[in-house]
Amino acid sequence: MIIKNISCLVTCAGSFPKTKDKLKDAGIIENGYIVIEDNFIVDVGSGDGYKKYLNDNRVVVDAQGKTVTPGLIDSHTHVVYAGSREFELPLKLQKMKYIDILNAGGGILSTVSKTREASQEMLEAETRKRLDLMLSHGTTTVESKSGYALDFENEIKMLQVNKNLNKTHPMDIVSTYLGAHAIPKEYKGNREEYINLMINKVMPYIKENNLADFVDCFCEEGVFTVEEARKILKAGQELGLKAKLHADEIESIGGAELAGEIKAVSAEHLVAASDEGIKAMADNNVIAVLLPTTSFYLMLNKFARARKMIEEGVPVALSTDCNPGTSPTESLQSTMTFACFGLRMMPEEIINAMTINAACAVGREKEIGSIEIGKKADLAIFNAKNLNYLFYHFGVNAVDKVIKNGSIVVQDGKPVYKQK
Amino acid sequence: MIIKNISCLVTCAGSFPKTKDKLKDAGIIENGYIVIEDNFIVDVGSGDGYKKYLNDNRVVVDAQGKTVTPGLIDSHTHVVYAGSREFELPLKLQKMKYIDILNAGGGILSTVSKTREASQEMLEAETRKRLDLMLSHGTTTVESKSGYALDFENEIKMLQVNKNLNKTHPMDIVSTYLGAHAIPKEYKGNREEYINLMINKVMPYIKENNLADFVDCFCEEGVFTVEEARKILKAGQELGLKAKLHADEIESIGGAELAGEIKAVSAEHLVAASDEGIKAMADNNVIAVLLPTTSFYLMLNKFARARKMIEEGVPVALSTDCNPGTSPTESLQSTMTFACFGLRMMPEEIINAMTINAACAVGREKEIGSIEIGKKADLAIFNAKNLNYLFYHFGVNAVDKVIKNGSIVVQDGKPVYKQK
Ligand SMILES: [Zn+2]
Ligand SMILES: [Zn+2]
Repeated sequence: MIIKNISCLVTCAGSFPKTKDKLKDAGIIENGYIVIEDNFIVDVGSGDGYKKYLNDNRVVVDAQGKTVTPGLIDSHTHVVYAGSREFELPLKLQKMKYIDILNAGGGILSTVSKTREASQEMLEAETRKRLDLMLSHGTTTVESKSGYALDFENEIKMLQVNKNLNKTHPMDIVSTYLGAHAIPKEYKGNREEYINLMINKVMPYIKENNLADFVDCFCEEGVFTVEEARKILKAGQELGLKAKLHADEIESIGGAELAGEIKAVSAEHLVAASDEGIKAMADNNVIAVLLPTTSFYLMLNKFARARKMIEEGVPVALSTDCNPGTSPTESLQSTMTFACFGLRMMPEEIINAMTINAACAVGREKEIGSIEIGKKADLAIFNAKNLNYLFYHFGVNAVDKVIKNGSIVVQDGKPVYKQK
Repeated sequence: MIIKNISCLVTCAGSFPKTKDKLKDAGIIENGYIVIEDNFIVDVGSGDGYKKYLNDNRVVVDAQGKTVTPGLIDSHTHVVYAGSREFELPLKLQKMKYIDILNAGGGILSTVSKTREASQEMLEAETRKRLDLMLSHGTTTVESKSGYALDFENEIKMLQVNKNLNKTHPMDIVSTYLGAHAIPKEYKGNREEYINLMINKVMPYIKENNLADFVDCFCEEGVFTVEEARKILKAGQELGLKAKLHADEIESIGGAELAGEIKAVSAEHLVAASDEGIKAMADNNVIAVLLPTTSFYLMLNKFARARKMIEEGVPVALSTDCNPGTSPTESLQSTMTFACFGLRMMPEEIINAMTINAACAVGREKEIGSIEIGKKADLAIFNAKNLNYLFYHFGVNAVDKVIKNGSIVVQDGKPVYKQK
């Protein structure tokens, strides 16, 4: 395939992860072209340099008036779940407290009981629909966490859904074990035993069966303490799972500091991260995965301090946090809007944060995340005459085409791939 | 046509405009049906009451699992314009002042010069694309203001675009003259003369040629004063144009009070409206058209006081404010999201505000805005199992089908009408 006449080709090329001034450079080429062979990018340039590759077998896509970016990477999601929680919305708007919503049958434990009940086939079917929406909005790789089952059998079921969909859906899925998402109700009053179950039984099984690349922990006031998070994540690291961390979403309890200390690959949320935590992350090259739609949906009236983090040299990534409680959206374009007007990040910073830096957050930076020779041909083609326009014009799906592994999988904003 | 098995039929029926507790009642029917004949709704009910209408000629649409609402009404837009202003976005993110953006060639006067230069055909073509996007997101009637030309000839050209597109596009267009959008540069230092031009030449011509139903004025610090707005709007009213008013968007200068005083049909924005202004609107049944995407896009960190207005008995409507400077979006679903999480309006309130109350704001409450026998068959069918779900799941286009005048004009979120 050849993509020619690209009005705005956003390569996100260069060394990674991108920080500070490098984050402001998205490697834009005007009137660009991309040549794809055997699922890989074999040339990138500008003008009519593509002409020497023309032959009868190559599909040629004209991208006049379009912006082309690396396929977007959604580096923090909870996309595998059963049941929706729209009944909580009116309660939240009336400022009902989370504890009262829990008592009214809502909150995370309602998703847990529905996800435990669901068969693997049903979970796959539900998740497949959401992956289609993600793909339609420009995402080609997604990180997907377990954590809505919390028992051995059903956490494994969730990770198996990741594994199966990674094979049968065009989306690449990076799997994360998040048994430490909440204390399951059957272990209430016996946290230690649940933590030991994760460490001694679940994680060894996951590693042995190659069911996850990462281990994650929800470190927050009232969920898991810093000490517990340290114990769980270090145990995972010893088994060869890489560490991620839900840190300082609501309260500053030292999650960002812990991420630096244990050299986690990434820490996420960080709305309340302290100055020291931000410094610890910068010093240890921990990716900050920011989730601005969640701040908005929780009506926190505040966002993570993205500008401060960028200034301090933290590599920033951005994600949807797609989940049934606090961010029920599949669209990274929605994240773009809030990253711009909420976090006040610049368009170039945002696109780097959703591609190459997000690739670093999921450990795939050598294969994806930029448009460079040798990388996988994962691309998003947007109806936007330049990069600023993609952020300026909001609230509608700007995707024209999505190319995954060198094939067109979305056309005119709708999936067109053949189901495996 | 028969639409049957509607999981959630949101009729918005009953007396109008809806205020206070009535605003909270969206007239929802579970397992509903709608029967359409000759572009009009001839029956509405629940269960299998539709069966007596079955015959070989009727199209039957099954809306199992869907939410059906009246076609959405976008009651405040500037959808006719030439040129986009994405180059301003990085400047705004870096907190450049509006006056400096103007000096850098941006701001409203850049849209004015591009719109003056554009041919009527070009303006129609550009606007048509935006109307298609609106339709695809569920809007079936749109109010469209002039005000990006400011001279006689080109303001008339803009209104002519409204008139032509009203005939050739499925969208119903309600036309508003907004000559008082800004003082054109050729009248700088001679405001009085421009105001007299509008009153003595432009408005009489518009009335005579039936080019607008409404007259509007941007009453704001640094734009038009309350005294000027009163003079312009009263002159319009005397000619038989109904009054609308951009009021108290940034500063509280008495715009809402004026709207009450002159019994305007609606006042818009109102982010800074005073308690007295809100009372004046309630007392005179002036519709408050709130535009929450604009507050967000301007990064004001505040929204109009919707809850206060509802409490005081003001009838509230909601709109996109679609325009190239402060709200470049065509999607009322985007407005839904911000009305919910920004204005803290409830789903039922929001849907009433975008249908029956919006119909009142554009003077069409007897023909559209609710699903009742005798009203036009303008409907939006959403992929949402209930009304809360439509607001809960955000950032993606939920439209399945749109029905306009009894015909399917959008299918699977994409326009399918035949162009006239
Ligand atoms: Zn999360
Ligand atoms: Zn306006």
